[in-house]
Amino acid sequence: MDDRIRAHAETLVDWSARVESGDDVVVRVAEGAHDLAVAVAAELGARGANLVATYGADEVTRAYLRAHDGDFAPADAERALYDRADVYLSLGGSRNTAATADVSGETQSAHARAREDVREARMATDWVSTVHPTRSLAQAAGMSYEAYRDFVYDAVLRDWEALAAEMAQLKDILDAGSEVRLVAEGTDLTMSIANRTAVNSAASVAYDSHNLPSGEVFTAPTATQGEVTFDVPITVRGRRVRDARLVFEDGEVVDHAAAEGEDALADLLATDDGARRLGELGVGMNRGITRATDNTLFDEKMGGTVHLALGRAYDACLPAGDTGNDSAVHVDLITRMDEGSRLVVDGETIQRNGTFRWEDGFDADG
Amino acid sequence: MDDRIRAHAETLVDWSARVESGDDVVVRVAEGAHDLAVAVAAELGARGANLVATYGADEVTRAYLRAHDGDFAPADAERALYDRADVYLSLGGSRNTAATADVSGETQSAHARAREDVREARMATDWVSTVHPTRSLAQAAGMSYEAYRDFVYDAVLRDWEALAAEMAQLKDILDAGSEVRLVAEGTDLTMSIANRTAVNSAASVAYDSHNLPSGEVFTAPTATQGEVTFDVPITVRGRRVRDARLVFEDGEVVDHAAAEGEDALADLLATDDGARRLGELGVGMNRGITRATDNTLFDEKMGGTVHLALGRAYDACLPAGDTGNDSAVHVDLITRMDEGSRLVVDGETIQRNGTFRWEDGFDADG
Repeated sequence: MDDRIRAHAETLVDWSARVESGDDVVVRVAEGAHDLAVAVAAELGARGANLVATYGADEVTRAYLRAHDGDFAPADAERALYDRADVYLSLGGSRNTAATADVSGETQSAHARAREDVREARMATDWVSTVHPTRSLAQAAGMSYEAYRDFVYDAVLRDWEALAAEMAQLKDILDAGSEVRLVAEGTDLTMSIANRTAVNSAASVAYDSHNLPSGEVFTAPTATQGEVTFDVPITVRGRRVRDARLVFEDGEVVDHAAAEGEDALADLLATDDGARRLGELGVGMNRGITRATDNTLFDEKMGGTVHLALGRAYDACLPAGDTGNDSAVHVDLITRMDEGSRLVVDGETIQRNGTFRWEDGFDADG
Repeated sequence: MDDRIRAHAETLVDWSARVESGDDVVVRVAEGAHDLAVAVAAELGARGANLVATYGADEVTRAYLRAHDGDFAPADAERALYDRADVYLSLGGSRNTAATADVSGETQSAHARAREDVREARMATDWVSTVHPTRSLAQAAGMSYEAYRDFVYDAVLRDWEALAAEMAQLKDILDAGSEVRLVAEGTDLTMSIANRTAVNSAASVAYDSHNLPSGEVFTAPTATQGEVTFDVPITVRGRRVRDARLVFEDGEVVDHAAAEGEDALADLLATDDGARRLGELGVGMNRGITRATDNTLFDEKMGGTVHLALGRAYDACLPAGDTGNDSAVHVDLITRMDEGSRLVVDGETIQRNGTFRWEDGFDADG
């Protein structure tokens, strides 16, 4: 076994999920994640935790959903499992990212609605999502399998303690700040972050962070003004969107364009009122992620990028009692902070040309 | 997908487990059983049942058990899952039948003991075990993959309703009978079956039968007298036993021999007092199983064979309040009812030369 699989499993169980002796741990194993499951099982055994492995196979889900009439019964047994579980580890690892492409959206939504209580019970555990590199994911990223494995482990096997300490600096600045200004090629945007709390997303439940890899600091902006261009391509509901451009007035999108996928962008914005407002401003700080791979889990954490999500805001960023921007969607759009870019908080430049002010090579005067 | 996989899934869900709309069904998927899991998911979806798929991977179990110190915590979450489940379907299908060969028997026993309540909760559901043909199982059977698949589907895809009706005839004879005599090459044995109830094991929970394939009628004999030779080789705790011969007096083995594996046979007989007495007399009636494959699930159901189990008797065969033969083991030994053989109940010949009296070619006078 590749030593990096063992290291991935150890990071997941120790740093991310903080598994303890006697914990009931449910491990979801995707079709292509067998090798990571074996390594995770060894880590759980060594810690004296209990293991229940579930089989998260897209082809099984597809067959089930296509045969079902869409009138789903309450999933009491599955609910009981998660009600009693302490930890949930989702080991992604597709063998075909398009495996459920021929399941109707209506059936998928009905299934999700009927299992909302199962999802909530699962989210009430110390849950962490990660991904085992597969040929299918390499293909989606346009990479060889060998290069993709290097990519994933560079992203996952970080010095998380050091990165958490670095990210704490940005969190402190955002927590104290009132206004963020974002300047880059095709971008000059201001947002209010007054009264909001930033999340230091350090890939650990101890930081309220549930993705491995993570490596971003995010908050929930309001009153957005100006224009922004997103130069990292993304896929929205199966459709490619490239060089999306949004114009905001009083917090709301008033104009939009895209070099590719403008229709997909328009459909997204038309979902509901909240889909035209921002739910998240996130700053990617994982320097192990050096390229886009058409996978938000990785792309939005890329060091030297900033992302803005149209749609739902996260509770953790909001003052008590504030519901924040509400929407059925949350779609992250990403832009590179290349030469000529600036991230400014209350008039002070925090990052220039993709380099933070606490990093070597930071140029205070531009 | 091979149509036979679909037919296997339909037989399992409909005939064997009698799944109904709204049932909570837990499906254990072995490493090599993915294709059968997809077909079973479609059957469950079509019936409006809920599906929870668990991953029964021997390599995951091995890694977990080898890393564990052996002091297992109660498995509350897994127990909660089976407490609420209506049906449990185990889809076997190994990728390596020796995958857990380097896990200590001590650890395996401790793990099984700590999860006895989980096992009981699982056995309280409408549970069925079946097997998806894999290359590993073909190898264990000494067969090509293609020939092994034909073998498995010939065994599984029977006219179960017709077989159940045929087996009911034998059950009626055994239920009414007091003494069974078994005559074959190297065999002349008598047993009492007075006051015992035979099980018509027709591969369905409706018949108290939990294996697919099945196809046997079995009861719990006592007071065994005489000698018996088992000409179907079996593997006992990893050791081959060929042409085992037992001599019984007053229900107990008083002499034993084997052409191969005599030590393994001796160890088995020395387990406890009950291991020297019979727990089961079974008559194989599945004519789809035409050869031995070193897998008891199939071998003991083979048409034209009889098996006797040393060890524990099944409650279903015993009068209320009677505990029957008790033992930590239950090991089936199998003999062919070839030319010259007879199965006699209360002096009446029920089967001669492997042909039942209700079958074409039965020769009443021998």
